[in-house]
Amino acid sequence: MSFNSFGHLFRVTTWGESHGPALGATVDGVPPGIAIDEPAIQYWLDRRKPGQSRFTTQRREADAVRILSGVFEGQTTGTPVQLMIENTDQRSKDYSDIRDKFRPGHAAITYWQKYGIRDYRGGGRSSARETAARVAAGGLARAVLADLAPGVEIRGYLVRIGPHAIDRERFDRDEIENNPFWSPDRRAAEIWADYLDGLRKSGNSVGAIVEVTARGVPAGLGAPVYAKLDTDLAAAMMSINAVKGVEIGEGMNAARLTGEDNADEIFMGNDGRPVYSSNHAGGILGGISTGQEIVVRFAVKPTSSILRPRRTITMAGEATEIVTKGRHDPCVGIRAVPVGEAMMACVLLDHLLLHRGQVGGEIGHTRGRIG
Amino acid sequence: MSFNSFGHLFRVTTWGESHGPALGATVDGVPPGIAIDEPAIQYWLDRRKPGQSRFTTQRREADAVRILSGVFEGQTTGTPVQLMIENTDQRSKDYSDIRDKFRPGHAAITYWQKYGIRDYRGGGRSSARETAARVAAGGLARAVLADLAPGVEIRGYLVRIGPHAIDRERFDRDEIENNPFWSPDRRAAEIWADYLDGLRKSGNSVGAIVEVTARGVPAGLGAPVYAKLDTDLAAAMMSINAVKGVEIGEGMNAARLTGEDNADEIFMGNDGRPVYSSNHAGGILGGISTGQEIVVRFAVKPTSSILRPRRTITMAGEATEIVTKGRHDPCVGIRAVPVGEAMMACVLLDHLLLHRGQVGGEIGHTRGRIG
Amino acid sequence: MSFNSFGHLFRVTTWGESHGPALGATVDGVPPGIAIDEPAIQYWLDRRKPGQSRFTTQRREADAVRILSGVFEGQTTGTPVQLMIENTDQRSKDYSDIRDKFRPGHAAITYWQKYGIRDYRGGGRSSARETAARVAAGGLARAVLADLAPGVEIRGYLVRIGPHAIDRERFDRDEIENNPFWSPDRRAAEIWADYLDGLRKSGNSVGAIVEVTARGVPAGLGAPVYAKLDTDLAAAMMSINAVKGVEIGEGMNAARLTGEDNADEIFMGNDGRPVYSSNHAGGILGGISTGQEIVVRFAVKPTSSILRPRRTITMAGEATEIVTKGRHDPCVGIRAVPVGEAMMACVLLDHLLLHRGQVGGEIGHTRGRIG
Amino acid sequence: MSFNSFGHLFRVTTWGESHGPALGATVDGVPPGIAIDEPAIQYWLDRRKPGQSRFTTQRREADAVRILSGVFEGQTTGTPVQLMIENTDQRSKDYSDIRDKFRPGHAAITYWQKYGIRDYRGGGRSSARETAARVAAGGLARAVLADLAPGVEIRGYLVRIGPHAIDRERFDRDEIENNPFWSPDRRAAEIWADYLDGLRKSGNSVGAIVEVTARGVPAGLGAPVYAKLDTDLAAAMMSINAVKGVEIGEGMNAARLTGEDNADEIFMGNDGRPVYSSNHAGGILGGISTGQEIVVRFAVKPTSSILRPRRTITMAGEATEIVTKGRHDPCVGIRAVPVGEAMMACVLLDHLLLHRGQVGGEIGHTRGRIG
Repeated sequence: MSFNSFGHLFRVTTWGESHGPALGATVDGVPPGIAIDEPAIQYWLDRRKPGQSRFTTQRREADAVRILSGVFEGQTTGTPVQLMIENTDQRSKDYSDIRDKFRPGHAAITYWQKYGIRDYRGGGRSSARETAARVAAGGLARAVLADLAPGVEIRGYLVRIGPHAIDRERFDRDEIENNPFWSPDRRAAEIWADYLDGLRKSGNSVGAIVEVTARGVPAGLGAPVYAKLDTDLAAAMMSINAVKGVEIGEGMNAARLTGEDNADEIFMGNDGRPVYSSNHAGGILGGISTGQEIVVRFAVKPTSSILRPRRTITMAGEATEIVTKGRHDPCVGIRAVPVGEAMMACVLLDHLLLHRGQVGGEIGHTRGRIG
Repeated sequence: MSFNSFGHLFRVTTWGESHGPALGATVDGVPPGIAIDEPAIQYWLDRRKPGQSRFTTQRREADAVRILSGVFEGQTTGTPVQLMIENTDQRSKDYSDIRDKFRPGHAAITYWQKYGIRDYRGGGRSSARETAARVAAGGLARAVLADLAPGVEIRGYLVRIGPHAIDRERFDRDEIENNPFWSPDRRAAEIWADYLDGLRKSGNSVGAIVEVTARGVPAGLGAPVYAKLDTDLAAAMMSINAVKGVEIGEGMNAARLTGEDNADEIFMGNDGRPVYSSNHAGGILGGISTGQEIVVRFAVKPTSSILRPRRTITMAGEATEIVTKGRHDPCVGIRAVPVGEAMMACVLLDHLLLHRGQVGGEIGHTRGRIG
Repeated sequence: MSFNSFGHLFRVTTWGESHGPALGATVDGVPPGIAIDEPAIQYWLDRRKPGQSRFTTQRREADAVRILSGVFEGQTTGTPVQLMIENTDQRSKDYSDIRDKFRPGHAAITYWQKYGIRDYRGGGRSSARETAARVAAGGLARAVLADLAPGVEIRGYLVRIGPHAIDRERFDRDEIENNPFWSPDRRAAEIWADYLDGLRKSGNSVGAIVEVTARGVPAGLGAPVYAKLDTDLAAAMMSINAVKGVEIGEGMNAARLTGEDNADEIFMGNDGRPVYSSNHAGGILGGISTGQEIVVRFAVKPTSSILRPRRTITMAGEATEIVTKGRHDPCVGIRAVPVGEAMMACVLLDHLLLHRGQVGGEIGHTRGRIG
Repeated sequence: MSFNSFGHLFRVTTWGESHGPALGATVDGVPPGIAIDEPAIQYWLDRRKPGQSRFTTQRREADAVRILSGVFEGQTTGTPVQLMIENTDQRSKDYSDIRDKFRPGHAAITYWQKYGIRDYRGGGRSSARETAARVAAGGLARAVLADLAPGVEIRGYLVRIGPHAIDRERFDRDEIENNPFWSPDRRAAEIWADYLDGLRKSGNSVGAIVEVTARGVPAGLGAPVYAKLDTDLAAAMMSINAVKGVEIGEGMNAARLTGEDNADEIFMGNDGRPVYSSNHAGGILGGISTGQEIVVRFAVKPTSSILRPRRTITMAGEATEIVTKGRHDPCVGIRAVPVGEAMMACVLLDHLLLHRGQVGGEIGHTRGRIG
């Protein structure tokens, strides 16, 4: 990862601010001959779009994506794909309240300190709007994956909002699309709805944990020792706004386990591939995929844009209080689900290409055979 | 991060296997004119060296570092520094027991699947021995930091082994060097000693959590949106062997907090710099350092090299059991402390140089002034 | 350089095709606080714009640049600057003549072989239109240079068209802006005008040599041994469409010189900096700038778009002839002058930032002092 | 290219100085399962070794390579290969003559200005000894090419020394190995021998032009627009010590040709692949290989280490004269031939892997078929 780019071969550079004319993603290294058009990418953007339930910001953005390059007659050409999203909802507004104050927990102060520039209109480059560009790039990555590795299935969902976690016993994959929280546990979704209604009324916000999984990933993706698959996934997820922790498989809980408990025992599957008694590893050993389900979790902190007054300072260094009005998400973790999926898609595709480059062979076959 | 290299400007490439003739780090982008010699780097390697207490592996490695390039008359020249460590303890041994079996939880199976190569003598590139090269590079990074940013103080320690966490109430920075666990809580160290003695006798292993902190880091390090300081720290820590989770500040716990609770309120300090009422952010906002203490935690899984029999398969795909004899760490997390510190040093230095390159100005001064 | 990006810290990614909706440059790593606006960049684009004399293509493109991100209230913010140029002159046209034929000397055949995609409308990504994006990025680089290193003066010009070279005895820097060829030799410009008129009538094209110079470049830019200043300049120039050779200082002629003749003898200048008796080195020794004028030359081959029939094959592999009608440059080398200048600006700025990152110090001062 | 590394996927980092303990190449991204051992690499190093004829330096270096990592039981493992060459001929010597003087045409002055470090013992990092590491890496690249693309045949030779060029009419590929100049023209070799004998006696040196060719390169290697094959070759060659110019195909001469003359007409070959009437393009169109012979030339300037007195300054800034005694090459261009071949091998392999990563397919087959 380098400034505003990530990926080794499938390389995504996002650009743009929350209140500028447009934002987007410049995607380089796309394989040629992949069928793609704007609706196919728009589909994924619409899932992230704000204002789809009362639990997300009411800011109205069309988030309509345009493909400006790299696609000809419905196919990728192998050259850079420029995905642009114009900002349409830049309502003129009175910033006098906040333009001189730093919001606690917000990047405005560090951006100011680093660059000496204050974009008082909104988060600028640090805004969660940047993630729209990631979702667009992820939509493209998914189209390529569908062609090269059609068995890969990426699925994200929320597993915790504030004090309320899902019950893994009630996990139902089919439930995820049926509620505004991408919750795999219908009961948790009900609890979260009540909880967030209360929180919103009190002008507060709350954190969440997102889990993103990928099935059907071939064994062998990832590379020692700094381009490990888990290393790149950790970087990808940690780069999302407001993320403070990333876990693979057992994650932080691995610290509590013994070697005996943590070992995923190995057996021979009927299809001639290894199968495992468990998946503490989250599908990754030594930084390389095992062929099991990849499991990543990340924690999203509560947004700093709240109606509760907090003590802070002005740009002149004077003590003051701040209250952030406006249309903000009480739980930004909800809209982080499609973003986490997009990052998973980009990282997996990148490693698929990287592996193909170094090791060769047909996708899905391993160089070392067992049995 | 790219295959076996990390860093943007201060760029470290590690190489070598556990049972080859040598391993090391090729370090590029080192600022010139920094005083350095082999003893200064050896100091840090000795802290990681195995066999210093009964709680780490009894493998005997001198881990003696040689500087092969990039230093002239005691100063860095600005050209690549090659740090080489010869492997001396390659005792000849009978591998017949394990050369055809895959150890559950170990990277041997994924390396085999990816590359079609089986280095049955040991972990090869996936061995924790690779981390010696990181510590050597970290020693060099520390020497540069001492010159460019002398106020930076990096300190790591263990905060959990298996079921036993430290008590933050008993946190004593001076205690860290006084026990074989880098524990800041003397009582926890005693508990861990008993616990590990029992575990070792039973042939088992256990995980741990390491916390690495840095004080005196100037505000303004890190860059949007994929070279964030926390993104690079997450990648750096996740790339260490056996790490399964990384947290910044509140980490995964941020999911449980409200925006009101999570906000680090801002005040003006006596030295004309902002101070904060708390440090939920772990010293990083929007990917950029705030000037507060940087706080990173990572979980190390239990080693898979245990005396307890586990079910697995042979390279021929036949079901079998495996027991790993040899000189292994019951808790590899202990020796991960100096490794985490080394990665912190490398990442901070890299971002210091990156910031100086893009933004300029004297180190420690921010472009945007407050007050 | 990596696919469609170049630069280490000042990193430019160009995107877009000749006949798509738009093309542009995503510029990352821009220092903050630099005054810039669209007219300042447009100034440089207008110099490259086609149709300014009868010696360049009559294709009419406004080449109007828009800044979509990275600039706020007239200053760079330190985040990616997106420079977009819409394609306006995509006149609908009958391609039936050429859509199935490969033009000798044109990239259509290799793009087809590599990607299996045929953009029959024009050069697609291989079109010289891509260089508009470079010129836009170069305009931004110049604005940064004007701020950080105001003494740097970049100047390009033509030194040869076909059989007719300039006479160095008649070299007049003030003449360059006074003729449609950027010729420093007024007499050569007259000869070229006649020569090109004849060539154009006969439906042929011709090559040229561009020389790009930079004065006022501080000593010390460039780094061993693969980020040498001359290495990066060679790559930058060779990456321009149709370029087949690059020279620094004496260039290919260095092969004819003896060591005695080639040595630029060193003296102490009045300002306490070294001066040289000559500049065979072209301002670069060991890949690092000496403080003398940087001198780069590159050869541009004649365009393959000519009215003279050439033998070729169809996509079906059948023998045929091809004639390229349309509005093409008889000598693309002319419009390569602003492109070469832009690449020089980008490379110099990149190395200025790279040097500042690794070595530090005020711009223009050297770490090693003489005298 | 980045400081001391080059290559996208097959990534070579060289390290070490002429008078340090050792130098070498850290090679990352090597495909696994390639047969390699030290003699296979030594073979190529021996071709570059000094002291093989009276026309090269009499410095005696064994240049014995050791493989320290990345190879197990005679095969590459896919992890970094460390190639180390110890410096054995560091004869103690009196440097008092030259330690305070800058040699005209030598990098000592720019290194000093940039880094403030003076390695008075020899060229340090700027020494041509660095190219031994390239040749070692190139030997490894050749082994991989022999496995993946066995039809590729790389061949370099001298085409000019000072005023004396070869006669293309007398070009005989079989002659290259039969003379100490890698000359394809036996008569030129005789002329060069006489010429260099005279030059050596007079204590002077001279430049040369090396041509490096590759046959059997599949069509489709290279990528728009900054990772073009010719861009990467230009950078690779220009990064070699003392190189001042690089040409592809017609090179600088392309400026003199008309479009009609320069067009390589296309026909259908008997094997179903395109063939060309000529090769002005040097095997590369639009930055992508055509399948024709790749032809690169580069000019090597005369070494600055001569016995003829030149005027210069001391580190104190005082005017003086310098004469360089010692064992130097009268024409460093001779030993640049194996270096150029090595760079060609590394670049071709890198692009083969890059193409396989992005586009896929079996090596040697093109995605777009003709006919």
